[in-house]
Formats: sequence, C-alpha cells, structure tokens
Amino acid sequence: MKLLRFGPAGQEKPGLLDARGQLRDLTALVGDIAGEVLLPQGLARLAAIDPATLPLVQGSPRLGPCVAGTGKFICIGLNYSDHAEETGATVPPEPIIFMKATSAIVGPDDDIEIPRGSVKTDWEVELGVVIGKTAKYVSEQDAMEHVAGYCVINDLSEREFQIERQGQWTKGKSADTFGPIGPWLVTRDEIPDPQHLPMWLQVNGVSRQKGSTATMVFGVASLVSYLSQFMSLRPGDIISTGTPPGVGLGMKPPTYLKPGDVVTLGIEGLGQQRQRVVAG
Amino acid sequence: MKLLRFGPAGQEKPGLLDARGQLRDLTALVGDIAGEVLLPQGLARLAAIDPATLPLVQGSPRLGPCVAGTGKFICIGLNYSDHAEETGATVPPEPIIFMKATSAIVGPDDDIEIPRGSVKTDWEVELGVVIGKTAKYVSEQDAMEHVAGYCVINDLSEREFQIERQGQWTKGKSADTFGPIGPWLVTRDEIPDPQHLPMWLQVNGVSRQKGSTATMVFGVASLVSYLSQFMSLRPGDIISTGTPPGVGLGMKPPTYLKPGDVVTLGIEGLGQQRQRVVAG
Repeated sequence: MKLLRFGPAGQEKPGLLDARGQLRDLTALVGDIAGEVLLPQGLARLAAIDPATLPLVQGSPRLGPCVAGTGKFICIGLNYSDHAEETGATVPPEPIIFMKATSAIVGPDDDIEIPRGSVKTDWEVELGVVIGKTAKYVSEQDAMEHVAGYCVINDLSEREFQIERQGQWTKGKSADTFGPIGPWLVTRDEIPDPQHLPMWLQVNGVSRQKGSTATMVFGVASLVSYLSQFMSLRPGDIISTGTPPGVGLGMKPPTYLKPGDVVTLGIEGLGQQRQRVVAG
Repeated sequence: MKLLRFGPAGQEKPGLLDARGQLRDLTALVGDIAGEVLLPQGLARLAAIDPATLPLVQGSPRLGPCVAGTGKFICIGLNYSDHAEETGATVPPEPIIFMKATSAIVGPDDDIEIPRGSVKTDWEVELGVVIGKTAKYVSEQDAMEHVAGYCVINDLSEREFQIERQGQWTKGKSADTFGPIGPWLVTRDEIPDPQHLPMWLQVNGVSRQKGSTATMVFGVASLVSYLSQFMSLRPGDIISTGTPPGVGLGMKPPTYLKPGDVVTLGIEGLGQQRQRVVAG
C-alpha cells in the first residue's frame, strides 16, 4: 500500500494511492496515518479493503507528511561510505545517531525555508524508515517486523549551524521545513529489498546526488536493532538512514541552496518530492 | 500554579496542587496539561479558578510527567562553568544543543532503568523550561513570554554510550526512563527569577550535586531566544538547561548508578523527585 495524508497543513486527512495512481479517502476508516494504524494488524486491516470501494479524492490537493504523530525523527550520520569520503570524514565503526526536531517535518512538496542568517543550506536525499511496532532490545533478525514501511526524506542541513556553531549536529538539522517526508508511506510488503533502491536528487534540474541504498554502511535491519539498544522505537517514529554522495558541502567549491531554487528528489518505488526554496 | 498529572502511566489525569499541598482534579476543565492549555490564555483561565471548588483527589496516586504532548526534549550541554570544568571540557562560546528522545520521559518518582549493557549510568539535576507559546526568531527581551513554567528534570546519561560509542550525545541520553519530569509544572509567575534557584541531588542520601541556577553560563531567556533561531519551539516542548557540578563522571574515581540505588533531587520552589534504580 501507498498511504498518504492530503489537505492543508495541520488539517490533513488520511488516504491511499490506488494501483491506478488515484487518491482514495480513508477518513471513514482511520483517524490518521499514525499510531495504532501503523501496527501490523492496523495495516492488515487496511490492506484487506478493496481501494475501489473508497471515495475518490477530487482535484489535486496538497500532500502532507505521509505519517503523523512522529515522536522521534532519528537520523544516521555518514552511513554511505562514499558520502563520508566527500565530507572528509571516515566511515564510523558503529552508527552515528542524531536527532532532527519533529517540528521540521513538512509535506513532500512544501517550500523549504532558508533559516535567517543561513548561508549554507544543503540537501540530502535519504531513505526513511517508519516504525510500525514498538522496538526495544530487538535482534537484527527480528528487526524488520517492527518496520511499517518506507518513504523519501530530504534531510536538509545547515552546514554552518551543524559544524561551525559548537558541537552536536541537531543545531543544523532542525529548522522548520528541514524535513520533507513522503509523498507516501510505502508499506514494507511492497519493498522486498530496501538495500537495492536507486535514489537521486536534482537542483534546478541538474543532477547532484545519484546513488543506491546498496552502498549503505549499516542497513535497515541493522539500524533498527542497533537503535533499539539505546532507546525504544515507537509507531510513527522515523529513521532517516543517511545520504549518498553529492551534497553541496562536498562540491568544489561548496554550493548551497538559495531562494528560487527548485529541489527534486526520489527513490525507486517510493515516489518523488519537489520543493521550492524560499527565504525564511 | 503547580500543575501536575496523576494516575497510572499512560492514563494520567490533569490536576493541580493547591496552597495547602492537596491534589485537586482538573479533569472537568482540561483534557490534559498539554498544547493549548499551556498558552498564556489557557493558563490564565486555570488561574482564575478557586482551587477549593475543584474535587480533591483521594489517596496518593502516582505522579506522571507534569506535561504531556512534548514534541521536543532539548538539552543544553556544559551550561554551568564548574560542571564543564569537572568533565574536562571548556565552557562553549555559544550554547551546545542536543536532543533527548521524548520516549525517555517518565514521572518524577518512577524507576530508573539501567539500559542493558550499561556500566556508566549517571545523574544530572537540571532546571526544565516548558514552552507555552510558539517561539520562532524571538529576541531575548521577548523570550520569557514564551515560557509556561518550570520543572525539575533528572537528565540521566549513559557516559559510555554518550562519549565512547561514536559521536553525538543523543545516544547516551535517550534510554527509556532517562527523563523524569516533575513533580509539577510551576507556572512562570511563581518563579520571578529563574536564575537564583538552589538545586541539589543525592544518591542513597549522600550529597552529590549542590548548586544554583545562578552559575548558568546561558540563562533561560538567552536559551529560549537562541534556540528559536535554529528551530521553532512549541507549547509542551521542554528545554533542560544543563547541570551543576557533582555528576558521577566527575568523581575520582568515576562512580555510576547500580540497581538498588535511590536518587533524590530537587530545585527550590519546584519540588523534589525520588527514583529507585533497577536493571533494564
């Protein structure tokens, strides 16, 4: 299934994309794409419904973040060997964890606001993992049972705030609009192998990132298990699993986003995002 | 006002502590101590009620976290000059920000679980600031209008996870039970000067931390303004403002918590916490 949320910001309704690419309204069945709806039994209940019986959504409404009620937005640092190299860092022996503010979450095609005072706002296409069942001290073998599905994430990053303004990356990762999520939460059954997904990002139509989840250092099952040793993962929590090479910081000279730019990005099977860059 | 939440974990009801130290039930008036209740007009509405007209709560129920719906649990690192010194670090020229998982939040007297594999679980008494009104790009002068009130926080920290297991402190700060909050959310009007509050922490009755918010490097107004440049602060968000000297990491030799220990801590005017340490 491709689950989604549509409508104005803060008033999104739950929906799904049917096999013909049409938006169907789930309002009569679930309150939101969140919490218990993401549990295995919640998703099974939705999967049992014939989408043709659901009301068609008229027009082309805005898409919101594909999941609501996110308690934690956890990011993995330097998780592609070739990206670590371009930033001048070495591949870490175990995953680097940092947090993005949940208040950074926006829809897949919402504007990106450059924070006031920012001169180094950068892009990062990433595979997002949405937790579907609480995970605490889970083994790598059992980890995937706790995954509801996947989504595209742009892990926007202000490099000066992140690196030059005193320790801890969260400072450069958390501005409003720095976390576009979606267009869809694609359930796990549709992505049998999350470690072979081509991914790409363009700025103003020029290719900047091109990679595959195949070159991740720590894969999805490994990350879910690892994280669950340090904190409980709960339904609706999101893990952003790191970015392949091609970020602005790694360009010679480094190149960053400016108002008027358009960022497009996508991951095979998970859809695309398109953001216009505006001044904050 | 001293607002609080009482009852079993996950089923807390809103309440307040009256001037005689009695628990009063707010269930008929507000859904929870969260969101719009924390807005200036929400707090003003509660302040207008004579507590004697509210039902008394019978018995001595468990107290839960004093605020619900926390979207972000933001911590400030090395914000007391003497604590920075004891950990071997220098005082940073601007605040260090890191995040604690919101899933770490528990009630003030709930058990502390030592995470599996942990040998360095440490304590930190901190002044907590609860946001009452969205703050984005606010000046230091206007910052306090965005504060609903204050609470005691024990910012529990696993030092090996935090420092020795690959970058970014969030890894050692986020285990379940690592964020006791409360007993009360004490509204701002009751604490005219948050920069002169004595604070203390004991382990098994032995004094470990004794300090005052007077020695903070960056004060509450400064922190709210500073953070709001990097992310929006929203009602229910919590800022844990750093810890004075006396943590286990700074002892010679370093000394950490073990199952059976009892931690007690408090801040003048904000009440006390008491936690029993158990194996996770």
